[in-house]
Amino acid sequence: MSILIENGIILPMDRKDGDQLFFQGWIGIENDKITIVSSSNELKDKFIESHKTDCKVINAAGKIVMPGLINTHTHVAMALLRCISDDVPLMEWLQEHIWPIEGKMAYQEVYDGARLGILEMLMGGTTTFVDMYPYEEAVADAAESAGIRALVSPCPMDFRMEHFENDWRQVQKRFSDSPLITMWMGPHAIYTLSGEHLQRSISLSKELGVGSHVHLAETQTEQDNSMAQYGMSPTEYFEKEGLFSTKTLAAHCVVMSDHDIEILARNGVSVAHNPQSNMKLASGIAPVKKMIDAGVNVAIGTDGASSNNDLDMWEEMRTASLLQKVSTLDPCAIPAYTALQMATVNGAKAIGREGELGVLAAGALADILIVNMEQPHLYPHTNLISELVYSAHASDVETVIVNGKIVVQERKCLSMNAAEVCATAQKQIDTLLSK
Amino acid sequence: MSILIENGIILPMDRKDGDQLFFQGWIGIENDKITIVSSSNELKDKFIESHKTDCKVINAAGKIVMPGLINTHTHVAMALLRCISDDVPLMEWLQEHIWPIEGKMAYQEVYDGARLGILEMLMGGTTTFVDMYPYEEAVADAAESAGIRALVSPCPMDFRMEHFENDWRQVQKRFSDSPLITMWMGPHAIYTLSGEHLQRSISLSKELGVGSHVHLAETQTEQDNSMAQYGMSPTEYFEKEGLFSTKTLAAHCVVMSDHDIEILARNGVSVAHNPQSNMKLASGIAPVKKMIDAGVNVAIGTDGASSNNDLDMWEEMRTASLLQKVSTLDPCAIPAYTALQMATVNGAKAIGREGELGVLAAGALADILIVNMEQPHLYPHTNLISELVYSAHASDVETVIVNGKIVVQERKCLSMNAAEVCATAQKQIDTLLSK
Repeated sequence: MSILIENGIILPMDRKDGDQLFFQGWIGIENDKITIVSSSNELKDKFIESHKTDCKVINAAGKIVMPGLINTHTHVAMALLRCISDDVPLMEWLQEHIWPIEGKMAYQEVYDGARLGILEMLMGGTTTFVDMYPYEEAVADAAESAGIRALVSPCPMDFRMEHFENDWRQVQKRFSDSPLITMWMGPHAIYTLSGEHLQRSISLSKELGVGSHVHLAETQTEQDNSMAQYGMSPTEYFEKEGLFSTKTLAAHCVVMSDHDIEILARNGVSVAHNPQSNMKLASGIAPVKKMIDAGVNVAIGTDGASSNNDLDMWEEMRTASLLQKVSTLDPCAIPAYTALQMATVNGAKAIGREGELGVLAAGALADILIVNMEQPHLYPHTNLISELVYSAHASDVETVIVNGKIVVQERKCLSMNAAEVCATAQKQIDTLLSK
Repeated sequence: MSILIENGIILPMDRKDGDQLFFQGWIGIENDKITIVSSSNELKDKFIESHKTDCKVINAAGKIVMPGLINTHTHVAMALLRCISDDVPLMEWLQEHIWPIEGKMAYQEVYDGARLGILEMLMGGTTTFVDMYPYEEAVADAAESAGIRALVSPCPMDFRMEHFENDWRQVQKRFSDSPLITMWMGPHAIYTLSGEHLQRSISLSKELGVGSHVHLAETQTEQDNSMAQYGMSPTEYFEKEGLFSTKTLAAHCVVMSDHDIEILARNGVSVAHNPQSNMKLASGIAPVKKMIDAGVNVAIGTDGASSNNDLDMWEEMRTASLLQKVSTLDPCAIPAYTALQMATVNGAKAIGREGELGVLAAGALADILIVNMEQPHLYPHTNLISELVYSAHASDVETVIVNGKIVVQERKCLSMNAAEVCATAQKQIDTLLSK
């Protein structure tokens, strides 16, 4: 199966700021990969000629063709818990609202919640997400059946460590042939893992050759408790324990000293910045500009929908830029192209898939969006990069391709029945709330 | 002409937090006014019976029916300048990019820019906007022909004061019979008006019985210059000069001392909070929670599209809430219902139209939205108020009624040709940039 996307404005995201960032051209896809990105009509005719029996042609005239967005930190099944509690203090939110319901969730609830979150993400142009939650097997099943790429990272939290290794290996075995699912360790956070279990997670990561996805320095309370218990910051603690000798993706990184930032840079730890969640939970403002200036790879995540309250990477890009501008009082902080890089190439780098994901280039996997720019809120067209970051909405995404398959076409999800997914989620949360 | 909106979830916005905020019901509209808001089927049958020859029936089953949003501060024609310059220092932005183009704009350019901005606002559920710009007659013409409600406030800036009064009176005369257009004075800001011209604006406001729409305390530079020139803050200066003896709507109010806030509260000055513009231009974070706690009426505005970069009141509500939470480190700051009040009833109060606009109640003007909640990003439904503020998008607005006329129906603008408006704006900016 091959696809030709023609007449589009190609935004490959493999250019440096200052280069020509986009151009009029076309993209050829064969099976799961991009085989050519070009502006040559001659080469296009050849591509058509050699694929004429099986080529789906998409006319993207006047539209932006760009890499799929990479959501580097979420708990996708929490879409089920969207809006069940807001505007309350953090501990009340967790203890009285979120945890009691999560305690009643098992495979099926997580699966149904993940389906809802995945539907929202696909419709908004997210083609890869990084997840952490109980029952990650359910998330992987939901992702594979919906045709979205997922990195799932089961948590070796203290209370389920004894079965953890076996469970992890079994799930990995089930998805070993899947082109969409990869697995990491998910050592949850300094405040949930004992030293012993952290060590077990690190040694498993090394043994299995996978990375670690962790919550880090999300709140001042976490920092204060770490100082009281270990006499050092969470970042210093994780470095001392050797976590950063595994490939690490750290979510949040809000309360960070210059020394903490230096540790991340030195160890090649990537950051998943979650601006809307940090704002909504009143955690604080991550020093993103400082981290980028120090050489840290910063990507973007939405966190779970119950602290956001959506899984919209367009809003998250925009907020990442605006929040740094106002917090540093520098209107040049995180310019639009940097925000786009954070949501694409930096995300790919954060999960060890640089060159494969987050770019439109020959040899990369075919995870592609087509964005309809014929919208009043995107007019007039004078700077497409600014329009995408400061003005575009998730609903402007028209077509989504993941791994060479069209999963959203003209704003209709082909891989899921949207009405059924929504109705099932409604039934699940109604049942959970009535229990 | 009458309209019946039935089977909807009515969110009247005239309830206090803690009351029942919404209910299943219907709304009857006659000409420009809401005549009944009810849940009684018996009364509905009577309404149908007495309007059967001319009644348009809208089925809003499963949808939210709420008051239109009030954008209390914008420069709508700047939609034409959307994205022409971003991510640069403020003075470079103004001096090298915005002002040179604005200098070439006259009636037609302002009219075409305003048409684009109005189209975006109507499609996103804004039914009233408060504007300040040169050529406000063009904005008023654009608003009236598009069927949106506008309060236009021509600026008595120093360099055009001599013709100002005559111009103002002529425009007011032209629109004196318009149900949609009202006019105020727009004394621009402390840094553009001389004391003499400020006094002229104040006395004209009093003579004509209209309010004043002003920029106030937007940046630290404005504060510093005011201290240097007058030995007092901009708020203190305007109070001393008597501006607040006119009904005043002050945009921004970012750099505010406790004394400044007390002055606003004591004088009944309303604030138009513009969070995304303040973030994007790195102006700072307005002390909204403090102002509300002090009794100030705070509404929401988008500012112009070139510093936002859209005219989306849904994003602005969400950002207003999230930004206060993170800046006060209080997750309870500006809860969802407060954000909705800011965008509706507080906006109406800010322009002296409390009870007439911003609510669904018998006797109020029929400015009404119907929001389609059948969207993956709004599921599951457990808390409609949270869903509207933290998860809904402008694109979820399905139907918009202004002054009893349907202007947007099933996401199609009936009062404007969207493609023509966009194309005309594109032609205008291309011409302006090539001059």
